[in-house]
Amino acid sequence: MITLASDFGTPYPAAMKGVVLQTSDARLVDVAHDFPRQDVRTAAFWLREVLPWFPPAVHLVVVDPGVGTDRAAVVVRAGEHALVGPDNGVCLPAARELAAGAEIEVFEIDLGDPASSTFHGRDVFAPAAALVHEAGVDAFESHEAFAPVDGWVDTSFPEPTVEDDHAEGEILVVDGFGNAITNVPGEVLDGRYGGRVTVNGADAPVEPTYAAVGAGQRLVTVGSHENVELAVNRGRGEAAFDVRVGDTVSLDYS
Amino acid sequence: MITLASDFGTPYPAAMKGVVLQTSDARLVDVAHDFPRQDVRTAAFWLREVLPWFPPAVHLVVVDPGVGTDRAAVVVRAGEHALVGPDNGVCLPAARELAAGAEIEVFEIDLGDPASSTFHGRDVFAPAAALVHEAGVDAFESHEAFAPVDGWVDTSFPEPTVEDDHAEGEILVVDGFGNAITNVPGEVLDGRYGGRVTVNGADAPVEPTYAAVGAGQRLVTVGSHENVELAVNRGRGEAAFDVRVGDTVSLDYS
Amino acid sequence: MITLASDFGTPYPAAMKGVVLQTSDARLVDVAHDFPRQDVRTAAFWLREVLPWFPPAVHLVVVDPGVGTDRAAVVVRAGEHALVGPDNGVCLPAARELAAGAEIEVFEIDLGDPASSTFHGRDVFAPAAALVHEAGVDAFESHEAFAPVDGWVDTSFPEPTVEDDHAEGEILVVDGFGNAITNVPGEVLDGRYGGRVTVNGADAPVEPTYAAVGAGQRLVTVGSHENVELAVNRGRGEAAFDVRVGDTVSLDYS
Repeated sequence: MITLASDFGTPYPAAMKGVVLQTSDARLVDVAHDFPRQDVRTAAFWLREVLPWFPPAVHLVVVDPGVGTDRAAVVVRAGEHALVGPDNGVCLPAARELAAGAEIEVFEIDLGDPASSTFHGRDVFAPAAALVHEAGVDAFESHEAFAPVDGWVDTSFPEPTVEDDHAEGEILVVDGFGNAITNVPGEVLDGRYGGRVTVNGADAPVEPTYAAVGAGQRLVTVGSHENVELAVNRGRGEAAFDVRVGDTVSLDYS
Repeated sequence: MITLASDFGTPYPAAMKGVVLQTSDARLVDVAHDFPRQDVRTAAFWLREVLPWFPPAVHLVVVDPGVGTDRAAVVVRAGEHALVGPDNGVCLPAARELAAGAEIEVFEIDLGDPASSTFHGRDVFAPAAALVHEAGVDAFESHEAFAPVDGWVDTSFPEPTVEDDHAEGEILVVDGFGNAITNVPGEVLDGRYGGRVTVNGADAPVEPTYAAVGAGQRLVTVGSHENVELAVNRGRGEAAFDVRVGDTVSLDYS
Repeated sequence: MITLASDFGTPYPAAMKGVVLQTSDARLVDVAHDFPRQDVRTAAFWLREVLPWFPPAVHLVVVDPGVGTDRAAVVVRAGEHALVGPDNGVCLPAARELAAGAEIEVFEIDLGDPASSTFHGRDVFAPAAALVHEAGVDAFESHEAFAPVDGWVDTSFPEPTVEDDHAEGEILVVDGFGNAITNVPGEVLDGRYGGRVTVNGADAPVEPTYAAVGAGQRLVTVGSHENVELAVNRGRGEAAFDVRVGDTVSLDYS
């Protein structure tokens, strides 16, 4: 199985699929091709949330603002999974989850000069993903295209501060529903469902699910990623809480 | 085969696919993941139009404004098809078509406490769909997760009034082309192609196809769903006829 | 393998897939379903760029502003590939690439009266694509639904003028990143990376890749389609160069 994720929109991902299918019979599964363009951190967040739900697979990941520069192309082996993409950190948060405690190994890809300097998804990453898939996640490095490396670029997310009655974090992403997902662990709301919390100085109910409040009403909940989330039932939390990605979120739950 | 439909956008559907693929080798086919958010009736309309074109399959349907509340999770058996989704009526209009006269049976899903209270697509419906697929549409209820129920939530569409020279209905949905699809059966236009009809007081030609009128010109036609449709050749019927979903449409064809 | 491309958005492509799967086990691969609506030339451009990356396949292509009129439905055989779609030229530029020098052959499709006059993707092209796939690209014409024809509609792209120090062309398409893709062959920039070029009277750097200039800076490059492209690193070239599809582009590189 090969999953595909990018910021390409359409129809560029189809060219990657065509290239893969020239040499592989792998099942192809799209993760998303509408990641915010050239936004490595947001893509890294979503991949970390979604890829761990897959069985062992090769994950082709192309959010690559440095395409054609000297940034490396890499395969990241993480347990029974491999991620193929640019060495810009986009794969690393997901890799740590997928490795499930195993050591992460990174291999640089060298397939010779690519056909283009602007579309390595098609000309480097897709053929590399097919090679990894056909050789096997535990064996691909026997192919001369792959050489182990010791250093690589990582992506980290900001750390929240969590105290007994207060937490301070950041909006990491806003999902398609308008839910503003913070980096504050959901544990701070343990035992508080049905109660209230202060968000950036304003009061809001803490509820286990969106429909616990009326349509259009704000709530604070713990999303499926297990982080604190600012939401509106049948509406957009980002607007109602007036927050954007990168904004500070201050929670008081004394 | 498992089809997938939701109002999730991306990348949440990929998490559902990963979960299914952990326990099933089913072919996966996306129906749509951009249904209007939390709009059960519109999703029910489209599923009724599209799913009957599929061979026997399990249909995973998640438009679920009540996620995490006490609304049940159900499997709807309809002939050789099964639909898996929330008990909010979203599956029922399609199920009636798919049953092809057979009796519809509904089973409540109990997989124990889900991992989240906000993403049952991933934590309840996806694993349930995989179970139904692996056990078979005619046999899944032998699994302890499924218990037959007698009552369920349905979705109905408004009924038009149809007279010899007049029909009154409603705009059910507007498709991506801007075609405004009514609930008035196309039969009212039988034999009228090439003629005229009055729509909400204004005159319009009745034609079998969009390009029968000039680019930018209005027409009334019978769409592929066999209902009367207000359209513009190479333009948007909703704008030209000034109608929105839920608006009344009055047709005079005396 | 059957690829699918259209201007349908969702969920209409799913109906086509259902129909195909009723009679075929083919792998289905989406190329794009968000081509600009009824824009045959843009779709033809993208198909020409993307389809040649696929192994032998049947390509179901539906951008069909003349649906229901007397425009024919055709299969275009191009080497080991077949394209199934309306006879409006949308398949021809891709077919020339896929034929790889072999002669293109065109067959009219006659499946009897279709169920609708507005959705031939579902009622004509999908079943025809399944027939071609099951019979084989080299053998489908033995089926009575297919009859060879001598004439067909083509799509051509405007020809640029290229001189030693000057080229004049046109913006063919703008991709999702905002890159404005011209019809001027990339060869005019050979040996000029690191230099400058004048675009519609204004100076711009010529670089092999987007990140060679600062974020938000303009550049002229050769895209993966091997044409000259007007771009902005991490921004939109169409806006920065103030060009739209169909606009003239004048390049001076003396």
